Amino acid sequence: MGVDQGYRFGVLPRGPKNLITDVQGVRVGHVTLADGDVQTGVTAMIPGPGSSFREKFPAAVHVINGFGKSCGLMQVAELGTLETPILLTNTFSVPECSAALLSWMLGGHEEIGRTTGTVNPVVMECNDGRLNDIRRRSITQEHALEALQGASSDFEEGSIGAGRGMRCYGYKGGIGSSSRQMQIGGVTYTVGSLLLTNFGSKPDLLISGKAVGESHAIEPDQGSCIIILATNAPLDARQLGRCARRAQNGLARTGSITGGGSGEIVLMFSTVNRVPHQSDKPLLTCNCLHEEYLDVFFRAVVECVEESVISSLLHATTVTGMGGNKIGALSP
Amino acid sequence: MGVDQGYRFGVLPRGPKNLITDVQGVRVGHVTLADGDVQTGVTAMIPGPGSSFREKFPAAVHVINGFGKSCGLMQVAELGTLETPILLTNTFSVPECSAALLSWMLGGHEEIGRTTGTVNPVVMECNDGRLNDIRRRSITQEHALEALQGASSDFEEGSIGAGRGMRCYGYKGGIGSSSRQMQIGGVTYTVGSLLLTNFGSKPDLLISGKAVGESHAIEPDQGSCIIILATNAPLDARQLGRCARRAQNGLARTGSITGGGSGEIVLMFSTVNRVPHQSDKPLLTCNCLHEEYLDVFFRAVVECVEESVISSLLHATTVTGMGGNKIGALSP
Amino acid sequence: MGVDQGYRFGVLPRGPKNLITDVQGVRVGHVTLADGDVQTGVTAMIPGPGSSFREKFPAAVHVINGFGKSCGLMQVAELGTLETPILLTNTFSVPECSAALLSWMLGGHEEIGRTTGTVNPVVMECNDGRLNDIRRRSITQEHALEALQGASSDFEEGSIGAGRGMRCYGYKGGIGSSSRQMQIGGVTYTVGSLLLTNFGSKPDLLISGKAVGESHAIEPDQGSCIIILATNAPLDARQLGRCARRAQNGLARTGSITGGGSGEIVLMFSTVNRVPHQSDKPLLTCNCLHEEYLDVFFRAVVECVEESVISSLLHATTVTGMGGNKIGALSP
Amino acid sequence: MGVDQGYRFGVLPRGPKNLITDVQGVRVGHVTLADGDVQTGVTAMIPGPGSSFREKFPAAVHVINGFGKSCGLMQVAELGTLETPILLTNTFSVPECSAALLSWMLGGHEEIGRTTGTVNPVVMECNDGRLNDIRRRSITQEHALEALQGASSDFEEGSIGAGRGMRCYGYKGGIGSSSRQMQIGGVTYTVGSLLLTNFGSKPDLLISGKAVGESHAIEPDQGSCIIILATNAPLDARQLGRCARRAQNGLARTGSITGGGSGEIVLMFSTVNRVPHQSDKPLLTCNCLHEEYLDVFFRAVVECVEESVISSLLHATTVTGMGGNKIGALSP
Repeated sequence: MGVDQGYRFGVLPRGPKNLITDVQGVRVGHVTLADGDVQTGVTAMIPGPGSSFREKFPAAVHVINGFGKSCGLMQVAELGTLETPILLTNTFSVPECSAALLSWMLGGHEEIGRTTGTVNPVVMECNDGRLNDIRRRSITQEHALEALQGASSDFEEGSIGAGRGMRCYGYKGGIGSSSRQMQIGGVTYTVGSLLLTNFGSKPDLLISGKAVGESHAIEPDQGSCIIILATNAPLDARQLGRCARRAQNGLARTGSITGGGSGEIVLMFSTVNRVPHQSDKPLLTCNCLHEEYLDVFFRAVVECVEESVISSLLHATTVTGMGGNKIGALSP
Repeated sequence: MGVDQGYRFGVLPRGPKNLITDVQGVRVGHVTLADGDVQTGVTAMIPGPGSSFREKFPAAVHVINGFGKSCGLMQVAELGTLETPILLTNTFSVPECSAALLSWMLGGHEEIGRTTGTVNPVVMECNDGRLNDIRRRSITQEHALEALQGASSDFEEGSIGAGRGMRCYGYKGGIGSSSRQMQIGGVTYTVGSLLLTNFGSKPDLLISGKAVGESHAIEPDQGSCIIILATNAPLDARQLGRCARRAQNGLARTGSITGGGSGEIVLMFSTVNRVPHQSDKPLLTCNCLHEEYLDVFFRAVVECVEESVISSLLHATTVTGMGGNKIGALSP
Repeated sequence: MGVDQGYRFGVLPRGPKNLITDVQGVRVGHVTLADGDVQTGVTAMIPGPGSSFREKFPAAVHVINGFGKSCGLMQVAELGTLETPILLTNTFSVPECSAALLSWMLGGHEEIGRTTGTVNPVVMECNDGRLNDIRRRSITQEHALEALQGASSDFEEGSIGAGRGMRCYGYKGGIGSSSRQMQIGGVTYTVGSLLLTNFGSKPDLLISGKAVGESHAIEPDQGSCIIILATNAPLDARQLGRCARRAQNGLARTGSITGGGSGEIVLMFSTVNRVPHQSDKPLLTCNCLHEEYLDVFFRAVVECVEESVISSLLHATTVTGMGGNKIGALSP
Repeated sequence: MGVDQGYRFGVLPRGPKNLITDVQGVRVGHVTLADGDVQTGVTAMIPGPGSSFREKFPAAVHVINGFGKSCGLMQVAELGTLETPILLTNTFSVPECSAALLSWMLGGHEEIGRTTGTVNPVVMECNDGRLNDIRRRSITQEHALEALQGASSDFEEGSIGAGRGMRCYGYKGGIGSSSRQMQIGGVTYTVGSLLLTNFGSKPDLLISGKAVGESHAIEPDQGSCIIILATNAPLDARQLGRCARRAQNGLARTGSITGGGSGEIVLMFSTVNRVPHQSDKPLLTCNCLHEEYLDVFFRAVVECVEESVISSLLHATTVTGMGGNKIGALSP
């Protein structure tokens, strides 16, 4: 539900829930492990109804800083389509989540690997090794499938799902989400964001432009940030890529210098103009937004991403994890 | 008219002229300077009828090896559109041709730089400094305008226009062109290519896979190659980019290792789904080819590019230029 | 000299002049045309002493938003070197400046285009068409050469040189510069920036995170921003590219959403580990900074870029130009 | 051992084994599953002695066609280093191999995920679903570990390891390898290649430029090709990337049009100038090859890749797999 504590991030109106699920059809589910040294989880995003393989979603990726281990991005970049749900998790659980997502897709599609080609699972990650015994690789395929099965248009933010063990600007980070709406030609469009925040150093944090801390020390900016953006506007892959590049502005507004060890990756998809896996008709007819109407989407991305970072901080609760490490919430 | 001397390059049928102008609306014009130490020229390509600024062409660029001084490519990559004709010339005449193309566009468009933004001239080049006294910068704006004005659906290949001073695989190179046709869903589409060839070392040349020379010496592969591709198929910018990347296969089939000093740049545009500069209607309706029908376009690109290289060699005539330097034609 | 009016942009110490010329060897020169409808100019940057062609500068480019007509960037990206000074000017004067830079290089280098290859002039631009009759193309080659000849380690910011006709966040923009210093292993390194600012909408402007205006209207964000970064630290081309990508954070901190029509281009070079044009010795020995020491350079880039934007605004003076159009200074 | 049956691919001398392991320190191991419907495997490449994490290998990736599910490439592109061995396998076994490679790295490095960051496993794949029941996901972590443990400077080519179920140009494909040597400044350098070939349509195959088949039918070009390149020359990441892009020429010489469904990915690494994970000294001294000496490496890449494709075909044996599908060897 984003941030509603009197903070303001930009000028565009928020969607009804102020969550990425304001983009109709998008669903999010979490599985959280919180037991002593194990503080981690999985967050699943289902991009829309029906088979994402048989009716793919126009999509683009943008790598702000490629220090990361996400998988599945290359094919999205080449073909401009997303064909599976997206899983978020800790760095060392990417293989297990990828295997689970593969199982999920094979389960529902007899044709994959038989009468047609393979499928491209997308899994994205941050390193939660400060709070979570990441070497233990606690996430199982069952956890990932459970997150997928539990996906809903209502979901929690903060220290939950993949966000359980994350740290952001020295405070407890995790999952943050927001949305914006705009009217174009009498039609209302929505842009939504979901972030997994695990980046930034405490002295750098800005909330609505104001420094939170006192210190002017320089501390290491490590970690990562995964940014998923969705819209129901008819943007093609190239246009989605242009939007995705504005996510960096949103992160920067919260104070980040995009540290060298911070994997910051953006994936944006549209829920319309879905692309059939195969087509008897060579020509597909689609409506596309003219380029000069894009600026408001850029603005929406910047605002959503900024708010999502702060929302992740404000929703997170203090967590104590591996070896007694404790990361305090910004909002106690 | 490509190569019709018994050589065969691939399996797809050629267009009626076996030239890029088989793509309806494309026109090409040359101005050639051939006087002693001055052996150079300009080749102009007009992508289609009407204003290319007010109704832009979907387009993409691909840089095989970026050792080159072409201008205007960055904006094509960002926006996926071409909004001017294209000029080809020698390296040091890019500024003059760019100025001329700007004049050409300003002349026909009162709105540019006044009531709307600026315009992005595309000029591409190779270094003809072996035959041409390139430091003399003999090309004037008038030459460039003359090439534009003379553009026609019929044009010559070989040692003409921008190709006047070029060398390819140790032989006289220059302008080469070819085309291919394919039927999809009962519609005939055309792909055409125009190359400015100035690359390769003599021992490397392959014609239809056969080595032409005897030597197995290694000679420097310097120079460059500009590849322009056109189609009347409804491909979007991302798809055109995928096609453009296959030009490298066509060059490689003629023996090239893509030398480090060879600027090899591809620009491909479509003559359909033209994009209005501004639009009162936010949504544009367009037909797009489904991705699984692209392979035949990839094949057409490979075949056209291979044939265009050889065609440039077979049409070129021996030229003697600066300091008495002489480059012999492959086909005497 | 950047901003010294009590504003603070980050935590790193500024260099002695707070200008890009704190990086030793860098020089900047301006030529300004200010006469009625003609309000434009040229700014020249000389990256260091000696021949930039015979001893090239390690360099990288990053395209934040490629709606622009700069030339010469492709080869910098391919080879990782800058081999000429850089000129900044208005959009329609790129060809004239490119021609002038070519003349400048040919003048000092008999070998170019004769016994060795050609040369890659780098010219970058913004559209000053609100204040300047840009269609008149008032910049001549002589203006460009004069800017090069007048380059010095002392230079002015604001409504000068290429910045004469620029607008930024609805106020008078133009040239802004700043620098930062850091100590690594007992050595002091410097990062400097020079920006040509012509972007942003008035309601979006943030100075040190604080909104300047009252309005929450959305206004078009058009224009462009050119960002040149220099350092005397031994960073290779890949590392310079990573630094360059952080310029977007600096722009974002001033409120920008990076509008679709704003060409935002970054070029960064290092003044050390210069690369000989040719080398008898195949192996070059160089010192390179280990990757884990890069973060402070990222921070310096963010801080310099943010400060340079604001500095351009605070140094600019009100200008009245074409058709009586007037753009007021932020700091009257 | 490449191809020694009278075929010739280029002019550079081969290394002693004509395998990628001619680059000293490189080792390759296979595990092959061949039982009825299960015809698949794993191929492991160890890039050099000692810890690849503590002393990383300069590296670059190039995506020819990104229709693929390889993982780990993004970080190699960002940081220019490879920090694990590389595993090759079938598409659906990427997660299992990635998990195994993670285990392998954690086993040898107590610091990963504890006192330092995480690690980036690189796994690359092709779809062997014609011969192998790929949905069964037969590869276990134990298989992958076994391939790593068995890696040696001697290894087999053909229908082995990850190559077991692959098809290339309609014939049985699989693993192919080759090498080339060059002398620069009195030093002998080696370039080696290892390919997993699973692409191309039968009528397109060229061996040393000659068509093998009779037919001029067009058949679908599906599948993929993974290309790993190694050298002991001191090339930096940018230079390795330039070399990697020439792999496309080598593939094209065997007839490929780079079909849209063919994931063709190149990874090249150098075994010298290894980069320490952390460094007390900010400055690293290294020797780098001057750019003008690169062409022979480009040539070596083209020759090695061409020969490796043909070598994979000539070493492969006929395999009968899933549902009785049989793919015949080119060389019976």
